[in-house]
Amino acid sequence: MSGDIKKILITGSAGFVGSHAVDFFLKKKFSILGIDNLSTGKKHFLDNALKNNNFKFIKKDLLNFKKICKYFKNIDLVIHLSANADVKNGPKNPTIDLKQNLLVTSNVLEAMRINNVKRIIFSSTGSIYGEAIKIPTPENEDFPIQTSLYGASKLACEGLISAYCEAYNMKTWIFRFVSILGERYTHGHVIDFYKSLKINNKFLKVLGDGTQKKSYLYIKDCIEAIWLAFKKTNKKINIFNLGTNEYCSVNESIKWICKDLGLNPKLKYKGGKRGWVGDNPFIFLDIRKIRSLGWKPKLTIKQSIIKTIKYLQNTI
Amino acid sequence: MSGDIKKILITGSAGFVGSHAVDFFLKKKFSILGIDNLSTGKKHFLDNALKNNNFKFIKKDLLNFKKICKYFKNIDLVIHLSANADVKNGPKNPTIDLKQNLLVTSNVLEAMRINNVKRIIFSSTGSIYGEAIKIPTPENEDFPIQTSLYGASKLACEGLISAYCEAYNMKTWIFRFVSILGERYTHGHVIDFYKSLKINNKFLKVLGDGTQKKSYLYIKDCIEAIWLAFKKTNKKINIFNLGTNEYCSVNESIKWICKDLGLNPKLKYKGGKRGWVGDNPFIFLDIRKIRSLGWKPKLTIKQSIIKTIKYLQNTI
Repeated sequence: MSGDIKKILITGSAGFVGSHAVDFFLKKKFSILGIDNLSTGKKHFLDNALKNNNFKFIKKDLLNFKKICKYFKNIDLVIHLSANADVKNGPKNPTIDLKQNLLVTSNVLEAMRINNVKRIIFSSTGSIYGEAIKIPTPENEDFPIQTSLYGASKLACEGLISAYCEAYNMKTWIFRFVSILGERYTHGHVIDFYKSLKINNKFLKVLGDGTQKKSYLYIKDCIEAIWLAFKKTNKKINIFNLGTNEYCSVNESIKWICKDLGLNPKLKYKGGKRGWVGDNPFIFLDIRKIRSLGWKPKLTIKQSIIKTIKYLQNTI
Repeated sequence: MSGDIKKILITGSAGFVGSHAVDFFLKKKFSILGIDNLSTGKKHFLDNALKNNNFKFIKKDLLNFKKICKYFKNIDLVIHLSANADVKNGPKNPTIDLKQNLLVTSNVLEAMRINNVKRIIFSSTGSIYGEAIKIPTPENEDFPIQTSLYGASKLACEGLISAYCEAYNMKTWIFRFVSILGERYTHGHVIDFYKSLKINNKFLKVLGDGTQKKSYLYIKDCIEAIWLAFKKTNKKINIFNLGTNEYCSVNESIKWICKDLGLNPKLKYKGGKRGWVGDNPFIFLDIRKIRSLGWKPKLTIKQSIIKTIKYLQNTI
């Protein structure tokens, strides 16, 4: 599926996942146009990329359709990674996921339709399974009930992308991520714990009861999987879970983080099975479909967490 | 679940389903506030309701949040029926479903949240199952892939409503309809065929090959089912398919319509298994869940089609 690709547009290109995608596809010698409004993305994540003549960055807000439509001209593939990815704080701002995820995706699809761009890679999430019945959860899990505004917005994006593929002869590769870890990581429990311990290393507040079980994936493994799936599959709609073959509890994660930092804080649990409204106490995706293509993650969850801690120590 | 309900707000109250809901709930002695922008709704559908002191109608566009928010004050239940329901023409106007269905639903939910309204009945659709694998299709069918912009927008609404219920302690009753027939019917194959035969009764153009199989439900059976499910269930999220225990092919439907009208037109098929992009060649919902509550439809599909033809003969 990749032979005829020359120019790739990456949305959210200054974000955690986006900037890694830029680096990866520049290494593969593609011409890359990155768009980001820098609301949560960081320009310095692109410092290396900006030295490469094959990379062009434009600071634009994808919500402004008139300003962004023209950039989709002559693009062979859109990698749409721009998103609000803060599940925990959704209820404090009930329409942000709708705007930043779904309305942006609608604009991206319209710009593709108008400019005759036919292929889109999309970063979805395991959160769309809500509190899944089957664990590990396969891609064809029972019709899911949404438990978070974030998950609901990503489900809506998946649906809209699929309907566009049907209506306008496009193709999509949709990836349902577990939480991603690694260099340039910007939000989630590892950074929350790290920052908290930096302020007070004797004490750590834990949302929930610490038994929540989650799966994680290292950023470079994530991008490799996306690329492999894109190269090896070519249906109208191609959907893959992305994760590892393992999960860990919040308590295990704390143990690894504290051991790595040489700390032994007193843990104070907020209690309850869920860390926040819409938190899923057990996220573990069935990744047999992506593994059947020949991919497997190089890093374990523990290695990814320690790599993330090393990155945070060097930057915060 | 119904004992404490006094005042009901019905969106899309001048529409086909909405106006029947108004009549039904007025008969049950509730106080009703109807909102409709009359873009596709018809004021005369409310002629009888407007004679009733328990009914108040306001012409407002639900997309205008500032204008509509105040009307949700002191409402006990929202019945949200306002929608663009034209599956067939979705691809001609790719953002209409997003606006008329999802953005309107987001406004309704925000108005509910701000005014502390805790219960919402929502009209979804069997189209959200896409081309289902299991037929008859149960509510917990495998994770569906969207094939129409209309279905995608309704799936997005379901997800958003569910996430609001989780985040803000609301409850919802979601009904996935087959096509609805009966008095005040305004769009679908029966009216298309009826109008075409009125212009030329010797000839009838049929989209697809005529073998598409669909299920239908009579409007009054539909409203009865909604009311029963609302009274008898009380989970956070209550989802029901609504349909009949039968389906018919387009060809059977044509036979009934033509026999009733005393016509014998020459049929010209456009061909293909699907009538249009996103058409599902076989829609038949598993209705055991709603039937287990004690409801069953009073009219067969054939009776509903003939009732619809009689209505059209009296009005067009």
